[in-house]
Amino acid sequence: MSRDVKAHVGKEITIRGWLHKKRLLGGLNFILVRDRAGVTQVVVEDEAEIEKLRGLHIGTVLEIVGKVHDEERAPSGAEIRSPKIKITVAVTEESPIEIDKPLSHKPDNLDTLFDNRVIGLRNLQERAIFQIQSKVLEAIDEYFHQNDFTEMNTPKLLAGATEGGAEVFKLDYFGKEATLAQSAQFYKQMMVGVFERVFEINPTYRAEPSATTRHMTEYITIDAEMGFVTFEELRNFAGGMLRHIVEKVWQDCEPQLKMWNAAKPELADPIPSMPMLKIHELYSKEHGVDTTAEDDLRPGEEKWISEYAKKNLGTEAIFVTEWPVSSMKFYHKVNEENPKVADRSDLLFRGVEIATVPMREHRYEVLVKQLKEMAKGDPEAPGFKYYLQAFKYGLPAHGGFGWGLERTVEKLIGLQNVKEATLFPRDINRLTP
Amino acid sequence: MSRDVKAHVGKEITIRGWLHKKRLLGGLNFILVRDRAGVTQVVVEDEAEIEKLRGLHIGTVLEIVGKVHDEERAPSGAEIRSPKIKITVAVTEESPIEIDKPLSHKPDNLDTLFDNRVIGLRNLQERAIFQIQSKVLEAIDEYFHQNDFTEMNTPKLLAGATEGGAEVFKLDYFGKEATLAQSAQFYKQMMVGVFERVFEINPTYRAEPSATTRHMTEYITIDAEMGFVTFEELRNFAGGMLRHIVEKVWQDCEPQLKMWNAAKPELADPIPSMPMLKIHELYSKEHGVDTTAEDDLRPGEEKWISEYAKKNLGTEAIFVTEWPVSSMKFYHKVNEENPKVADRSDLLFRGVEIATVPMREHRYEVLVKQLKEMAKGDPEAPGFKYYLQAFKYGLPAHGGFGWGLERTVEKLIGLQNVKEATLFPRDINRLTP
Repeated sequence: MSRDVKAHVGKEITIRGWLHKKRLLGGLNFILVRDRAGVTQVVVEDEAEIEKLRGLHIGTVLEIVGKVHDEERAPSGAEIRSPKIKITVAVTEESPIEIDKPLSHKPDNLDTLFDNRVIGLRNLQERAIFQIQSKVLEAIDEYFHQNDFTEMNTPKLLAGATEGGAEVFKLDYFGKEATLAQSAQFYKQMMVGVFERVFEINPTYRAEPSATTRHMTEYITIDAEMGFVTFEELRNFAGGMLRHIVEKVWQDCEPQLKMWNAAKPELADPIPSMPMLKIHELYSKEHGVDTTAEDDLRPGEEKWISEYAKKNLGTEAIFVTEWPVSSMKFYHKVNEENPKVADRSDLLFRGVEIATVPMREHRYEVLVKQLKEMAKGDPEAPGFKYYLQAFKYGLPAHGGFGWGLERTVEKLIGLQNVKEATLFPRDINRLTP
Repeated sequence: MSRDVKAHVGKEITIRGWLHKKRLLGGLNFILVRDRAGVTQVVVEDEAEIEKLRGLHIGTVLEIVGKVHDEERAPSGAEIRSPKIKITVAVTEESPIEIDKPLSHKPDNLDTLFDNRVIGLRNLQERAIFQIQSKVLEAIDEYFHQNDFTEMNTPKLLAGATEGGAEVFKLDYFGKEATLAQSAQFYKQMMVGVFERVFEINPTYRAEPSATTRHMTEYITIDAEMGFVTFEELRNFAGGMLRHIVEKVWQDCEPQLKMWNAAKPELADPIPSMPMLKIHELYSKEHGVDTTAEDDLRPGEEKWISEYAKKNLGTEAIFVTEWPVSSMKFYHKVNEENPKVADRSDLLFRGVEIATVPMREHRYEVLVKQLKEMAKGDPEAPGFKYYLQAFKYGLPAHGGFGWGLERTVEKLIGLQNVKEATLFPRDINRLTP
């Protein structure tokens, strides 16, 4: 992903890009030119060429023809000298923010960052986040195709809310009410009956009424579902995906990772599992509290157990298993040996849950019973009717995951807020740019 | 993508799948078992094994262990004999539709098809459409990555409507009004300033008030944008993508294409271009009408010129160029030599427009002028303010395309309606399943 200017030493090349930095004060006169590959240093000594750059600001689009020379101190280990410069688009106003400086966005100052997003993303370090994200997506596609999954796209405009609850956006649909999909949950399960293994990568919508470091109203979910799978096989498949992402990103994105001093995650193979109760016990003992009766992990517990796993198990990812049935969804599967827990796992990575990885109840009668008892749902309602058809006419044991793209990138790089890993984040307070 | 049972002749194998057809009437007793790879014929002669299948219906989930024998007449050229059958999930009710029969969906009977979508997709021919679609997506990802594009995801929840007009869905966003994105247009152009080459594949929303064979309210668009590109290079890049899709699909999806008798498209390299006026003239001469003053092609003209191009130019895809400025968007670019036409092209494939491939006006002052004059737009409005920033601080000559996934698959296979190539279509009359 970085331009190999060094490979052209001794040759004349043409580069087209943006003026990224300008230093024409006498002594060593040079500019930096940014393009999709990185920045190239161009030494400008000819007065006529310097003249062309007078009054022009960062962002100016230009074309440079010149000869490449070795230069240890240049960003790419080489530089262009004696250039012929052609100005393609002149920028005559100074940028509202400095883009050639190292990034200094602070978790308490993100609004400035996002208000200036359009130009701010031209900063190399900021841009690197999304070059890494693109590589994560490429790795995910590759992993699914290697494992014989069919890619699909299911609708986000729905007649009823999938997960129920208040956090659903509603809209007028030609006089009827429609909702925006809170997940692809039902569709991906239905499609196990057709394709056996499916995935989709699409936006997901939650009318999340609070601005946190972990939630947005629109985000990208990697949804997968596999038929004929055991809970252990499912976790190993999900764990394999995280490992594949890490290997691919650390192989192809070295310059971008360096900008963030990102350390390659240690990941055990397979990624270990720990029952929720055990985590509660370990945490309670360490912190002098008692969380053992709680049916979810506290954010503090997620962080702590991640540190514990790194130190004691040599892994920065861990599955939390044996979730109390009191917090299960109606479509989750109760464990066959211990009816107090569901076959659900959450994949914690560097202190935060990046994926929920549960098995589903696949037996029609049991599912209808759970729907009625746990969700007070009507099997004939449009939101459930079609879903249940798939089970009535045969679905095997299956499970899958909903995996957050932005959280994964956030934690790979070591950011503090999921919005930093989102091009144009959306929350209760933000609908622009 | 098809199970190579034949490769296991002489060996014992285990398959897990769905009962797809059952013929246990004496004589030759056999079942077909469907899984993600295809169907496998299993000859059942042992009375105890036949007994297990009594009363069970299509969709029953089962596991088969048996030996593979050569058998020319079986779907995969081989079959399993003397199986041990294990019923995993028994289906005790007959499916509301026949899924093991050749498909007989008619353009005038699509409601039945879609009402029964959840089970109907288990039909092999129906399923094949979406296996091909998955391959198209894989080919597209591959093509973009080979050409150094960055994949991104831009928001679909917006403060204002991108394209304006009435065909926009509106929703309540915590007391404010939000709209659903009609395109990624503005974002992809802004991101040229950051990544030079970008793409995204995401849902697009249009409150299209009529049910046609070409439109839906939610569909998948492949959005791309390239900086430092000429109009000709852009068309060649888009044409190359169509060729790459065709090569990949015809290489990997032979069984699925056969089910639809899909003929491999003839595509010239490069795909030729023809000015709109010339198409009007050819069509008018042939049909005894006069369309030469019109600023768009009639659907009949799109079909006719596609047939003409196939017959006379040996290509089933053609670019329509030189669009009258009277129908251009404010962000399109007027041709430098002929100010009566815009540098826009539409890619016609087998009679329908599958992509719009225009150059953009990249000069800030000209764009602001066009926005005010053509769209009566306010440069300070939230829908335009951020967009214009990208130009003010430097964007090179650029162009891109919005490309319809479902239309492409429809035409590759030879379907009649874009909804046939959509898992769960949405239009003014349909919001379920």
